[in-house]
Amino acid sequence: MTDDLLESEVPVIPPGYEQMQWTRGFGRQIGPLYQKNNPDGTYLRAFLVGEHHTNGMMNCHGGMLMAFADTVFGHAISMRRKSHYWVTVRLLTDFISSARLGDWVEGTADIAGEEDDLFTVKGRIWCGERIIMTGTGVFKTLGPRPPRR
Amino acid sequence: MTDDLLESEVPVIPPGYEQMQWTRGFGRQIGPLYQKNNPDGTYLRAFLVGEHHTNGMMNCHGGMLMAFADTVFGHAISMRRKSHYWVTVRLLTDFISSARLGDWVEGTADIAGEEDDLFTVKGRIWCGERIIMTGTGVFKTLGPRPPRR
Repeated sequence: MTDDLLESEVPVIPPGYEQMQWTRGFGRQIGPLYQKNNPDGTYLRAFLVGEHHTNGMMNCHGGMLMAFADTVFGHAISMRRKSHYWVTVRLLTDFISSARLGDWVEGTADIAGEEDDLFTVKGRIWCGERIIMTGTGVFKTLGPRPPRR
Repeated sequence: MTDDLLESEVPVIPPGYEQMQWTRGFGRQIGPLYQKNNPDGTYLRAFLVGEHHTNGMMNCHGGMLMAFADTVFGHAISMRRKSHYWVTVRLLTDFISSARLGDWVEGTADIAGEEDDLFTVKGRIWCGERIIMTGTGVFKTLGPRPPRR
């Protein structure tokens, strides 16, 4: 078939990852994002750097890495408080290395502290063996959200 | 005419703002963004919160505010070093209040410190009288970029 992609052009999504079904809003706009839930309760999120994620140097835009960090780090709250909305209070992001067009970027985070409705989360984002970003977020839970479908 | 928008539905872009002509990459993806250059060398950037910027609560997504902060704060470097690329080294963002769908969100920043190729920038983002975000960024200039058209 003439419209076959070359094998090297097909994005390879690692086993266990599922595409997140965000059909609206900013999540859809910066997607697709992928998620992998491990049996031990930990999780990974990831995305493949596309043209629509790049800056003028054809690296992943710093704003995209920060937006990704916000969803990755904040998801730790959703894992701990499944039925609550949360908001970001403060986020510190350290840019260690750049991600390039076509890179598979992964991230995860852990809750480092919990005090009433405030959570401190430490997270990291990497590409293969290369650390891209580390950071610390403070998040606040709000009232209950409608049940997830 | 039947396809007239109601007056209340037409986004009102304040005088002096021009839409930024980002035709590719992440800048286009999260746009449209607007910019206003003042005669005294200061500047403003802004955007109208659209559906594609929102989170599940129909407020502006925290990731969008951070991405906007990155472009607003970093632009202070472009004003000081017009012919150089720059990268974000560290960004701290404090979320003070939320921006809602339809809000006109503005931001600016000032260089607080300069040491060789490292710049410390303090910035703020607001909506009318309401502060949305404050933050501090560290940026690093790289080599010269091609002349801007």
